[in-house]
Amino acid sequence: MSLQLRQLSTADADFESAFQRVLHWSAETDAAIEHRVAEIIEAVRSRGDAAVLEFTQRFDGLQADSVSALELGREELKAAFDAITPAQREALEFAAQRVRSYHERQLEASGKSWSYRDADGTLLGQKVTPLDRVGIYVPGGKAAYPSSVLMNAIPAHVAGVPEIVMVVPTPRGEKNPLVLAAAFVAGVHRAFTVGGAQAVAALAYGTASIPRVDKITGPGNAYVASAKRRVFGQVGIDMIAGPSEILVLADGSTPADWVAMDLFSQAEHDELAQSILLCPDAGYIAQVREAIERLLPGMPRADVIRASLEGRGALIQTRSMDEACEISNRIAPEHLEVSSSEPQRWEPLLRHAGAIFLGAYTSESLGDYCAGPNHVLPTSGTARFSSPLGTYDFQKRSSLIEVSEQGAQQLGRIAAELAYGEGLQAHAQAAEFRLKKGS
Amino acid sequence: MSLQLRQLSTADADFESAFQRVLHWSAETDAAIEHRVAEIIEAVRSRGDAAVLEFTQRFDGLQADSVSALELGREELKAAFDAITPAQREALEFAAQRVRSYHERQLEASGKSWSYRDADGTLLGQKVTPLDRVGIYVPGGKAAYPSSVLMNAIPAHVAGVPEIVMVVPTPRGEKNPLVLAAAFVAGVHRAFTVGGAQAVAALAYGTASIPRVDKITGPGNAYVASAKRRVFGQVGIDMIAGPSEILVLADGSTPADWVAMDLFSQAEHDELAQSILLCPDAGYIAQVREAIERLLPGMPRADVIRASLEGRGALIQTRSMDEACEISNRIAPEHLEVSSSEPQRWEPLLRHAGAIFLGAYTSESLGDYCAGPNHVLPTSGTARFSSPLGTYDFQKRSSLIEVSEQGAQQLGRIAAELAYGEGLQAHAQAAEFRLKKGS
Repeated sequence: MSLQLRQLSTADADFESAFQRVLHWSAETDAAIEHRVAEIIEAVRSRGDAAVLEFTQRFDGLQADSVSALELGREELKAAFDAITPAQREALEFAAQRVRSYHERQLEASGKSWSYRDADGTLLGQKVTPLDRVGIYVPGGKAAYPSSVLMNAIPAHVAGVPEIVMVVPTPRGEKNPLVLAAAFVAGVHRAFTVGGAQAVAALAYGTASIPRVDKITGPGNAYVASAKRRVFGQVGIDMIAGPSEILVLADGSTPADWVAMDLFSQAEHDELAQSILLCPDAGYIAQVREAIERLLPGMPRADVIRASLEGRGALIQTRSMDEACEISNRIAPEHLEVSSSEPQRWEPLLRHAGAIFLGAYTSESLGDYCAGPNHVLPTSGTARFSSPLGTYDFQKRSSLIEVSEQGAQQLGRIAAELAYGEGLQAHAQAAEFRLKKGS
Repeated sequence: MSLQLRQLSTADADFESAFQRVLHWSAETDAAIEHRVAEIIEAVRSRGDAAVLEFTQRFDGLQADSVSALELGREELKAAFDAITPAQREALEFAAQRVRSYHERQLEASGKSWSYRDADGTLLGQKVTPLDRVGIYVPGGKAAYPSSVLMNAIPAHVAGVPEIVMVVPTPRGEKNPLVLAAAFVAGVHRAFTVGGAQAVAALAYGTASIPRVDKITGPGNAYVASAKRRVFGQVGIDMIAGPSEILVLADGSTPADWVAMDLFSQAEHDELAQSILLCPDAGYIAQVREAIERLLPGMPRADVIRASLEGRGALIQTRSMDEACEISNRIAPEHLEVSSSEPQRWEPLLRHAGAIFLGAYTSESLGDYCAGPNHVLPTSGTARFSSPLGTYDFQKRSSLIEVSEQGAQQLGRIAAELAYGEGLQAHAQAAEFRLKKGS
């Protein structure tokens, strides 16, 4: 069965409308899920551990006498690490070291406190401190990714968070040894085999056994996403992720098979994932199409890849690489591969993307696992205004102000003038009280 | 009528429960407002300018033939600036310069792109770029604060945002000259006299006349807050603010009148605002109480202050300044005054606060208007996990990865090992395609 993969050209008269259809995606909010999640959160808030146990039995088929019986001790995480293959151990530790090293640079670049003094002795600054306690949600079942444990826990660890609490559902008690091993490597402090909206609620409000955290990060299904949205404000959350996306800008210099496989690597995630190629060279687009058709039957997840490419994929011919960059900025993709022999020429033109992969050797999958930067990235065009998960997500800032007596004389007059203008007389008088008599 | 201002002591047996009652505040979501806001947003999405005009007429009593007739030109902003008093002009410009200078330091400290290369030539980094276009919501009517225009627009300007769009309702066409003058001083690029949920919807989705933005910041009433929450994801938003709060830690060295006025300056905002004093010295607490009772009748907003202090205020005696710092960390206040002769002794103990005001001369009101740091701060305990508005809110980051051919050899093997472990074969093969044959 031949692949129905849509092909567009920016020269087509109807390009704009066809392009809009390709991009269109909206997160349907399911009212039934919203309602169930609200009930689950309320039950956990009011009945704590008992509700967590009930939902864990009902949804995960996992029976326990107490929530503390669902806690995984550090020894159990270590045992999982010891039990995986030496190659897996090495890969996890290598990836963790790369991710740690990158995030240490990130902390160094943007995570330090600073202050300065005015000539009159007034001190101004910003104090940067780690969060006290964070929760990391790790999906169980078929989308259980040990790499996500590293990508969420390591930035928190590097930021200096003293307590990282992982929750992971284990349907019918089945634990994923790689996830447990990754938690060991990443330095997770506590772990509970609890999942779903009940785990999010327990982390947000705390129960007798599960500590209340300050922020919850990590991916999850529709129930988890709805619960995170609902507890936002009570705790911090990372973004609510949409389907994963890759955009490849190609000038035709990369082997077509490589680009085809990079498109597959996004499409294999799920049927809603989006893979798009932008290229000015029609001949190269034909080569990539041929590679896709030739390679697809050999892929273990061929059905998912086909559904994703046919449903949401596109090969788009542009007039030029410059135009391809403009279109990329409109898409603001999660993953952006610049598969070009001159990646540094195009990079400055690319304003909106979660992560930019430069040159033929930089497959997205290297970044997904072990290059170092985070693989938790803004989706669905939100790279226009948001950023990869980073150490900054596990820190917060406090302004520091110490006005000297001398400084208070000038600042006080200005503040009083503006405060009276706003009709806030107590603000004005508080400033005026600091003025020297007769000055 | 004597003031009913509650007083607690950490030595009381029932302190914990009384303290919890003081802290308790929950944002009631009004289902009727939620429903109305959803309708307004949908109307603006589907009918654009026409819906904006209808709602502006209905809610603000302001009739116009077109949305472009509601746009304030740069000349009109300048005319407002020219028409205010010289003292007001000087105060606005002075405050703007201080705020700009502080935020330039902030940009310097945490807003720069960076990168490094591994020994094998692989480049890793992070590119920091300003948002393309942001919207600033400015309330009209009684809570119209020109200082908020400065505090929202200047960080965006310093971050390099090329287009800052202000919206401000003008009920029955009444414009606040100080707000318009502040917009002129702060470098707002475009301004529309539109407000409410309809303004938020127009900024989030765009209409024929109002451009779509990438992020919306600024305070507003319950309709505005609900609309911002609803468009979150389509655009970025800042935090949804709760009532304003001040916590004063006092060791008894500051004149009691100053502290009383600082408590008033928060209480005068509205009846839900919260003012709390923590102090180990019972005699000093009595002095502050006396000052409050003596000064209150002279305040123009005495009724609001009284309602706020009686409803949500508290004077709390602690066993020590150390204990006061611990309690402060539990509250995670928006504004934290360390009214002590040794502020630098206590500052390191204070982990959670939006802004920390050190020493007797640093009244909160100096920071509200002109010290330099931002006055948009996390409320309701969210300083546990969030930060003052800053230049970082108007930038976003993209990861940069350029793997060398040599780097791809080692990274590829590790990535493939982990990808196979996750059952993602296309990820693994994309990495393996970059390996040299026979290596």
